[in-house]
Amino acid sequence: MLEDKEPERTSLEKLGEFGLIDHLTRTFSPKQPSTLRAVGDDAAVVKFGDRALLVSTDQLVEGIHFDLSYMPLKHLGYKSVVVNLSDICAMNGVPTQITVSIAVSNRFPLEALEELYTGIKLACDIYQVDLVGGDTTSSDRGLYLSVTAIGHAAEEEVTYRSGARPNDLLVVSGDLGGAFMGLKVLQREKEVFKVNPNNQPDLEPYSYIIERQLKPEARKDIVSLLKELGVRPTSMIDISDGLSSEILHLCDKSKVGCNVYEEKIPLDPTVISACEEFVLDSTMIALSGGEDYELLFTIDQDDYPKIKGNPNLTVVGHMTEADRGAHLITRNEESIPLKAQGWNSFGQG
Amino acid sequence: MLEDKEPERTSLEKLGEFGLIDHLTRTFSPKQPSTLRAVGDDAAVVKFGDRALLVSTDQLVEGIHFDLSYMPLKHLGYKSVVVNLSDICAMNGVPTQITVSIAVSNRFPLEALEELYTGIKLACDIYQVDLVGGDTTSSDRGLYLSVTAIGHAAEEEVTYRSGARPNDLLVVSGDLGGAFMGLKVLQREKEVFKVNPNNQPDLEPYSYIIERQLKPEARKDIVSLLKELGVRPTSMIDISDGLSSEILHLCDKSKVGCNVYEEKIPLDPTVISACEEFVLDSTMIALSGGEDYELLFTIDQDDYPKIKGNPNLTVVGHMTEADRGAHLITRNEESIPLKAQGWNSFGQG
Repeated sequence: MLEDKEPERTSLEKLGEFGLIDHLTRTFSPKQPSTLRAVGDDAAVVKFGDRALLVSTDQLVEGIHFDLSYMPLKHLGYKSVVVNLSDICAMNGVPTQITVSIAVSNRFPLEALEELYTGIKLACDIYQVDLVGGDTTSSDRGLYLSVTAIGHAAEEEVTYRSGARPNDLLVVSGDLGGAFMGLKVLQREKEVFKVNPNNQPDLEPYSYIIERQLKPEARKDIVSLLKELGVRPTSMIDISDGLSSEILHLCDKSKVGCNVYEEKIPLDPTVISACEEFVLDSTMIALSGGEDYELLFTIDQDDYPKIKGNPNLTVVGHMTEADRGAHLITRNEESIPLKAQGWNSFGQG
Repeated sequence: MLEDKEPERTSLEKLGEFGLIDHLTRTFSPKQPSTLRAVGDDAAVVKFGDRALLVSTDQLVEGIHFDLSYMPLKHLGYKSVVVNLSDICAMNGVPTQITVSIAVSNRFPLEALEELYTGIKLACDIYQVDLVGGDTTSSDRGLYLSVTAIGHAAEEEVTYRSGARPNDLLVVSGDLGGAFMGLKVLQREKEVFKVNPNNQPDLEPYSYIIERQLKPEARKDIVSLLKELGVRPTSMIDISDGLSSEILHLCDKSKVGCNVYEEKIPLDPTVISACEEFVLDSTMIALSGGEDYELLFTIDQDDYPKIKGNPNLTVVGHMTEADRGAHLITRNEESIPLKAQGWNSFGQG
């Protein structure tokens, strides 16, 4: 009898990013008493004296997360820092330091990397964080960035994904869908440029959403605002993959359900008009678009008067018992189960 | 007159890795009072209460830092952790947590990543560090690993590259050159395999040096040993790029010179015999080979009796005034200026 020499192989696409990291780390268990939270939140939490150290890391890979034909290197540098600071903010912490590692092929001249670091420095200056380390090496192809952010919070102020309770209000900062629609506009212009390189596009009407895509901001101001208002969120996450996916993370980790109301989802008028132009449903874009880096958090109902009327904050729903599930309540009062339509990089191309 | 539309472009090869990171970060200046040391040592140092937080990050890129045809994924995972723990040890600190980010193409099946994480877990178990975060994404080609290690030390115990003084003794742990000669053997076997895939190589005589290449260790034990002996190094660095390059780092940061004695450089007999076989000069290999991850440090002469005769430690030279420069004193008592022959990934291929 012939032996089957081909060992069993499982494709990465099947698992997706979240499934993959859960699968690979399932046998790891913390041994250090200082490890308060390991994998599974926006940032790791490490006890350090009477403070909690927050650590978050993210990667940006050329051809997967960005396309240099419409993402200027300066913006890429800025964004690579901001997405990590956003994770520290999502723990209710203050970011203080970053490390930046890049692997880059020889096709990039020094001047390109200087552009990249100009953006990194701008983010450091604006957010008052220090670049404290990193590593620069070559790659055989493309540009690869890995940024780690460090921050801190008082141990009792750290806000996990797991703290939401039934009847808590679900609140989002800013507005949603802009970053995704900005990407759609940039992708369209790239196609137009391929056909007619002399075309001078008028991108002025799209400037808000293009900026949301190219130069997102971490909502450090919201963390400060909540402190000023005397509101301590019960759970929090940043919106990197789309509202729907992030709500499901909060529900999963907190073991609660959620009703989110379509009519409450904050949309900028530019997003609504761009959605009409591209014949896309704006609710769907807000739920699944991603990269807005707004904060999504839950608060106790008693805290509602403190945030009421604040232009930066919108109550979009409330948490329920877990067995009620997570639903979108449409304008027609239909209840539709939320699905994670967050982005799976392994499913691309 | 025609305008020169080609902007000036500087190739990365010219600068090399150290020049590049210095150049790119030269305009960054720390703003956070907690940032005790930013770029320029084995790890960043951040004040956290009465402790110093140590943070180090390193990348391993397929085709640049490793070749999967002779580096098994399990070993790669182990090594990716160890090289970062080594940086924490080189600050005289204790590593406690790591984050691991990987970008991987779809050609890798899940089982391959499981192998990688088996190695990562083994390192976590052996060194008692916790995996607390990371990120997994796809790449359009190859495997890219970025590991960040976190550790701590009492603020006054942190050992920088900059503390060496003239007349301090220069000490190295373990022996040198093994990792490089292990790589030479593995590369040779790869070539033999290409010609004759059925050849069964006898690698037994090389097992020590192959293990030095595939499964290096971080000298956490040396940090403990020095504490037990009551020796506080005045400066320290880990040997990732070769003895010569690391000595020059210590001299540069400490503003001292150095005499290192060829006859004192610790070499394992396997390294000597492999060098003879490959017709390579073993002193040159120890000076330039790299990847041994031993610790190189300076101590006050008064501490010499405490380390004398310890089989883990070898005094290889002494520091001098800066204007004397850094020299190798050969067996023939010739004095040859040391050159950085550390590895420049941008100069490859």
